[in-house]
Amino acid sequence: MSDDSRHIPAERYAARLTSARDALADRGLGAILIGVGPDLRYLTGFVGEPMERVTLLVVPRRGPVWFVVPQLEAQKARTTPLVAGGHAEVVPFEETDDAPAMVARLLSDAAAPTDRAAPIGLSDRLWGMHVLQMQAALPGRSFAPASLAMRDLRQVKDADETRLLGLAAAAADRTIDAIATGRLVGRTEAEVSREVRNRLIDEGHDLADFAIVGSGPNGASPHHDASERVLQAGEPVVLDIGGTLAGYVSDTTRTIWVEGEAGIGPEPEFVRVFEIVREAQAKATTNVAPGVPAEQIDAVARRVISDAGYGEYFTHRVGHGIGLEVHEDPYMVSGNATPLAPGMAFSVEPGIYLPGRWGVRLENIVMCRTAGPNVLNRSTLDLRVVRG
Amino acid sequence: MSDDSRHIPAERYAARLTSARDALADRGLGAILIGVGPDLRYLTGFVGEPMERVTLLVVPRRGPVWFVVPQLEAQKARTTPLVAGGHAEVVPFEETDDAPAMVARLLSDAAAPTDRAAPIGLSDRLWGMHVLQMQAALPGRSFAPASLAMRDLRQVKDADETRLLGLAAAAADRTIDAIATGRLVGRTEAEVSREVRNRLIDEGHDLADFAIVGSGPNGASPHHDASERVLQAGEPVVLDIGGTLAGYVSDTTRTIWVEGEAGIGPEPEFVRVFEIVREAQAKATTNVAPGVPAEQIDAVARRVISDAGYGEYFTHRVGHGIGLEVHEDPYMVSGNATPLAPGMAFSVEPGIYLPGRWGVRLENIVMCRTAGPNVLNRSTLDLRVVRG
Repeated sequence: MSDDSRHIPAERYAARLTSARDALADRGLGAILIGVGPDLRYLTGFVGEPMERVTLLVVPRRGPVWFVVPQLEAQKARTTPLVAGGHAEVVPFEETDDAPAMVARLLSDAAAPTDRAAPIGLSDRLWGMHVLQMQAALPGRSFAPASLAMRDLRQVKDADETRLLGLAAAAADRTIDAIATGRLVGRTEAEVSREVRNRLIDEGHDLADFAIVGSGPNGASPHHDASERVLQAGEPVVLDIGGTLAGYVSDTTRTIWVEGEAGIGPEPEFVRVFEIVREAQAKATTNVAPGVPAEQIDAVARRVISDAGYGEYFTHRVGHGIGLEVHEDPYMVSGNATPLAPGMAFSVEPGIYLPGRWGVRLENIVMCRTAGPNVLNRSTLDLRVVRG
Repeated sequence: MSDDSRHIPAERYAARLTSARDALADRGLGAILIGVGPDLRYLTGFVGEPMERVTLLVVPRRGPVWFVVPQLEAQKARTTPLVAGGHAEVVPFEETDDAPAMVARLLSDAAAPTDRAAPIGLSDRLWGMHVLQMQAALPGRSFAPASLAMRDLRQVKDADETRLLGLAAAAADRTIDAIATGRLVGRTEAEVSREVRNRLIDEGHDLADFAIVGSGPNGASPHHDASERVLQAGEPVVLDIGGTLAGYVSDTTRTIWVEGEAGIGPEPEFVRVFEIVREAQAKATTNVAPGVPAEQIDAVARRVISDAGYGEYFTHRVGHGIGLEVHEDPYMVSGNATPLAPGMAFSVEPGIYLPGRWGVRLENIVMCRTAGPNVLNRSTLDLRVVRG
């Protein structure tokens, strides 16, 4: 894979910043403060982990944009596409400086009087310690989620994001297919999970984020990780895997029946449940179209499962948005009336979990297009019965 | 290494909870709300990553302790030592429940009237979105950092934490020693960094968190990571590495001169700078004793470097606390008058960075004992000149 296909051009960041400023004005925010995390990567290209030294992109409605960073991060901040393109100014602080007070001064000096009454937006993942510090440094100001402005931007993927989600999905598909055709019986879940992680990287991810292997009864726990349990012939295994490629996340689930050398095929109820989940997944996917409320995607899948008599065993929402975060807006869950729009990307992952026996979950990443659903994962949804 | 040496007994968690309640009363907090992160692991044993579904340990001054978790995490929460020991009750919520409102009700029902005027402590790493949700759900209540209560507990390590920090440090030492005696010339920093990460795991870490390889001029940037630059004969390399073992972090730095087959030994100024940094590191370490202000450890190292004429090239604090987080209280930095106490663990890591040329940093994890410093890292601080 060429580096080019993973590149996001610098102009894109400038365009995102302009959209964010429009959105914050629309939402009545006076400014947004964006800490290290997905919102910051989206706006600037800055890649990093939050730490006790606060880093904040300070975006007032108008005027200069400041990137307040610890001195140690200043050089890295200067090389981000947003700063290199001249769209934000790096303001470094020293170890003994009071960074929240610096940010408060920047906001107070710059903001037009009308802005001062407006709430300040804080990024969703800003650490609590920094929220409290900013609230103390700006007494009398009110605060709101920056996602009021950022959500509408980030949940509609641009062309670069769409390409990267596609690359990540394809890498995850190749991993699933390799695991499904490889050795399974007699290995522990943890061993298979390690192989998944290695393959996620080999197939092009930068990070292997999760590799759930739920064999037999462990598959009945939706958030089971991977244990020392040894995979047996004559039982199913749930593989729910994902990694990060150039910042964008893959997330796909397949459930496979392992018959082993003895050829112990699937029990009738497993076949029935598998087909119900597959139908729920397919129907929910077919319903993806602009204007459809997010909660309807959940409802469609849930109805298939309920009508088949397994409603109480489908214990979670049917999906979550995906992009720079593995879970982000829009959520496919009862109560979320957000209308789907072209460019939205999310999982469709119904499941049925029979405690003590096994579980079935099937998950694809689906993008909403004008023409309907665009399914990023291509690995088969047919029931695979493998020797393992 | 036996699993036993990594185990923290259940009684320890109960004792920590009792100490936390005493501390929050002492600090005038009405309750603390602890999200997923190091404070939560410390109090309950719960291991996980924060996500959009909030998880909160709700600790009022007295009465029951609740562990409010998404339904999907309920089983995992029940198996934590704190809950299994009967010291907290799991309160699961469904996908469509309003978890912040549930927490607010628990607090309002339970708290004695006097507690309602007291601020509610929020854990340092609680996501901003959850801080704002809790503030909205509890109008009229004030909020403060939970670290007002947690800091004093967490910065003094108990016997289990001390043992685990020692195991992590030893695993990092073995990694440094293996890298220092292996092939370096002709490999990229990224390749060496990958080897470091693999060895950190092989030596007993569960996670390889960072593996800075700063060769030649890249060593002059304290937060350089690892690049495609190829290591040369006749230059130094800074290795700053760490991983997580049973939750506890290692962090150690060594600077090595690579002479190569050609035997290009160190330049005189490098030898001089190395000895200055070594003396600064040693003097700061020797000063570790109960009652000494944290900032004095920084000042001692800084004076050695300033007196030698390199003050402007030592651009960061001399150290940070370490435990469940790679950076935590107490910080060895000007302005922090916290008196050192037996059980505190922190890095001592002075450095001199000559832009465009190279850098030297030496870092050990040091614990304060009644008798003075206990240096956890044992890898040599002598100047190593290696073939590489």
